[in-house]
Amino acid sequence: MEQHSNILKYKHLGIYTQNENVVYMREDCHVCVSEGFEALTRIRISNLDISIVASLNIINSDILLPNEIGLSDAAEKKLNLSHNETLYVSHLEPIESLSHVRAKIYNQKLDYNAYSEIITDIVEGDYSNIHLSAFITACAGGRMDIEEISNLTKAMIVSGKQMDWRKEIVVDKHCIGGLPGNRTTPIVVAIVTAYGLTMPKTSSRAITSPAGTADTMEVLTNVALSIEEIKEVVKKEGGCLVWGGTAQLSPADDVLIKIEKALDIDSEGQLIASVLSKKAAAGSTHVLIDIPVGETAKVRSTEMAEQLKGHMETVGKAVGLEVKVIITDGTQPVGNGIGPTLEAIDILKVLKNESDAPNDLAERALLLAGELLELSGKVKSGMGNQIARQILESGKAYEKFIAICKAQGRFTLPVLAPYKIKIKAEKSGVLERIDNRKIAKLAKLSGAPQSKSAGILLNVHLKDIIEKNQLLYTIYAESKGELDYALEYKNSHDDIITII
Amino acid sequence: MEQHSNILKYKHLGIYTQNENVVYMREDCHVCVSEGFEALTRIRISNLDISIVASLNIINSDILLPNEIGLSDAAEKKLNLSHNETLYVSHLEPIESLSHVRAKIYNQKLDYNAYSEIITDIVEGDYSNIHLSAFITACAGGRMDIEEISNLTKAMIVSGKQMDWRKEIVVDKHCIGGLPGNRTTPIVVAIVTAYGLTMPKTSSRAITSPAGTADTMEVLTNVALSIEEIKEVVKKEGGCLVWGGTAQLSPADDVLIKIEKALDIDSEGQLIASVLSKKAAAGSTHVLIDIPVGETAKVRSTEMAEQLKGHMETVGKAVGLEVKVIITDGTQPVGNGIGPTLEAIDILKVLKNESDAPNDLAERALLLAGELLELSGKVKSGMGNQIARQILESGKAYEKFIAICKAQGRFTLPVLAPYKIKIKAEKSGVLERIDNRKIAKLAKLSGAPQSKSAGILLNVHLKDIIEKNQLLYTIYAESKGELDYALEYKNSHDDIITII
Repeated sequence: MEQHSNILKYKHLGIYTQNENVVYMREDCHVCVSEGFEALTRIRISNLDISIVASLNIINSDILLPNEIGLSDAAEKKLNLSHNETLYVSHLEPIESLSHVRAKIYNQKLDYNAYSEIITDIVEGDYSNIHLSAFITACAGGRMDIEEISNLTKAMIVSGKQMDWRKEIVVDKHCIGGLPGNRTTPIVVAIVTAYGLTMPKTSSRAITSPAGTADTMEVLTNVALSIEEIKEVVKKEGGCLVWGGTAQLSPADDVLIKIEKALDIDSEGQLIASVLSKKAAAGSTHVLIDIPVGETAKVRSTEMAEQLKGHMETVGKAVGLEVKVIITDGTQPVGNGIGPTLEAIDILKVLKNESDAPNDLAERALLLAGELLELSGKVKSGMGNQIARQILESGKAYEKFIAICKAQGRFTLPVLAPYKIKIKAEKSGVLERIDNRKIAKLAKLSGAPQSKSAGILLNVHLKDIIEKNQLLYTIYAESKGELDYALEYKNSHDDIITII
Repeated sequence: MEQHSNILKYKHLGIYTQNENVVYMREDCHVCVSEGFEALTRIRISNLDISIVASLNIINSDILLPNEIGLSDAAEKKLNLSHNETLYVSHLEPIESLSHVRAKIYNQKLDYNAYSEIITDIVEGDYSNIHLSAFITACAGGRMDIEEISNLTKAMIVSGKQMDWRKEIVVDKHCIGGLPGNRTTPIVVAIVTAYGLTMPKTSSRAITSPAGTADTMEVLTNVALSIEEIKEVVKKEGGCLVWGGTAQLSPADDVLIKIEKALDIDSEGQLIASVLSKKAAAGSTHVLIDIPVGETAKVRSTEMAEQLKGHMETVGKAVGLEVKVIITDGTQPVGNGIGPTLEAIDILKVLKNESDAPNDLAERALLLAGELLELSGKVKSGMGNQIARQILESGKAYEKFIAICKAQGRFTLPVLAPYKIKIKAEKSGVLERIDNRKIAKLAKLSGAPQSKSAGILLNVHLKDIIEKNQLLYTIYAESKGELDYALEYKNSHDDIITII
């Protein structure tokens, strides 16, 4: 039997497909011909060290030679390739865990082992977007019970790195479907670490919003720290405010969340597993979950929020977390600024107890900090808010915040964007509604979060009595073009802020 | 407000992604920067005439210049592009029908309008593979009732071209999950058109099997006819045996079937809608469905087959088709040859009533032809098989078959492949089992259907008494390499044919 030489030379094509592993080969390449590969065939690609699975795209132009092979950036990175390296291509053995996905499609209940095998293969990159979408869909629509959600969460926790702070109590917080401007996290971390609790906060960058906590904190300090650096900051200050991307916690979640975004669904099971697996993998023991409810928030009714609360607390217990869920007002943005720099300015005002600090942001942060103090068991029930307030008003929270920023490498004052336009009321009346989604969209069109100082500065709140020509908000941008672009959107949408 | 100039120059990259529309733009392209496009963003691409939706892949190499744009072959074809043409790129308006997909994910029942909007957008190419997979999954697992399957089928019928033969009765047949070698269709068409019925048969090429009816017929005649040519052949001979690919019947089905293949599922609803929409769009009025049942056939139990039969007949009625389903033996291949040429040889032997014609193939074809004659109402119940047999034995079916081939442009005699190897029994005993899937795989590895004369010629059947060294089958190939490749598979799988 002669040996088949499925060997090709690697050429960098630089095609970025997000997570998906795609392999490019010529139609007339000897491997495609002899193996009978066709477009979308899933193929195993190996170098001497590593092997991955990728979906085939067939090339019929000269961007590749017949003896060359290309890969998407995601796949190139996983194989750690250099130009001209030799790759070996082979048929894919069946992905065994897909039989569990098919079982789930056919309404069967999966056990821990099944979820574990699925999550392991997802982290390996063995699933195509078609497989991922089928898994997400099969698990949505209430087709997972609490036991399954717990098993999925456990499988996700162990799929990546797990942090261990060698502390009995490690607190964390999470907000489900953040409201624009609702940047309580830095204030909460400052208060509870000033009290003496351990709160190693890893946050995400914006995925669909005008700012994530990591984007906002990056205005003030460094957030892209290595795990070793994070450990040092936490050892010194009891907490941190860093970007979670380097930590590789619950990596399957990062893959699944992009598919959910493409489908624009948020299945309860995936949501709970996503949030709690990240928290458990980050080494938290006590987690406060904030669910803002409002018609333009992610959770639209108290009923849905109550159900989510019950399920989250049950799953939390099953995976060994002390979880408390609070339901808050999600009818309007919190704070004045929307966008990294504008939110950073709000945070500093609150921490410095300045007279023009946004009161709603301060009170929301105090509520959460108080709940966290009580959840930890270190503060008596009913006393949390008061103690949090004392820490904030005494300046200790501000001191701690600056200390954390400096421990992370720098503290920088925020600077406003050079271009702005003031939007004024076209009539008098009562402010009836602020559309969270549209005001967020406006902030994004102005350039946030890529342009850190872009965004919206709100001057009004729900139920305010508005005079004609009163300032409603200011749009900030880093370029004239972006300012115009946001303004164009504002002019074609008269329901961003509704006055009646 | 200044005009944003989202204009790029088209460059042919020749990337074949199967159906999916993919657009390639440089990371530093002015449109990506100003619009905030990122990988996997769904974008609208237009030239002066047409507009399509595509998923973005970001390029960071010099296969594109910053002012250039590339497209996958599927997208290029839809826009009918030439090099250097100017394309306009814009944000995608929301795809409204995705709200129906989300409703289905959340277990809601969809009505005709919802299915119609979904299918229209799928045919337009507006759905990414992620959306298609979610739709397929949400519809699987028994989550569609008969009314929904009927509505999906109706929506698929009108989504493409519909043929009208201006005949009261137009018959057709379909086999669910074909068995290797089971090439009854050409014989059935010859018999029933010789009787005088209209049977304009469009068939597919192989998707996963070693031969489709179109591949086999192509050995004997032309099958890639235009719709006008098909109409002429049918007008002249009452029937045809052509490839259905040019007819654009139920085009959504072609898209969905590839996603189902990638997921390796066959949901009942999609299967019924797929088969019946193609038949109705092809202008059939009376359709015979053959479901072979066997442990290595597509349908594995009589129970499943009976349920499918009931649902198919009900949906058939709902969409205005007279459907009859028969359940047949699917425990072994039918006929001797597996592969286009070898099957064509079997067909000619049966039609010419040769003494070494495969009897199982002849009897299966007579069963189906007889049922079709009765289903049409032109032949009394119980008389179909006998009349079909008279037509076959009289030579009229052969005459008609040759006439159809000639009307399609040629009749060519099949020629065997140059390389072959005889596989003999390693022991004596009774032939207990033939694995349909593995014998099909063996035929594919020998080169079928791309190499038309490659494949397997079986000499034995279930329950045969086998002597040691008796010839079991011959592998045919067009090259030494392919023959070796098939042999390698045979040598590592001792359960292709089981003798005990």
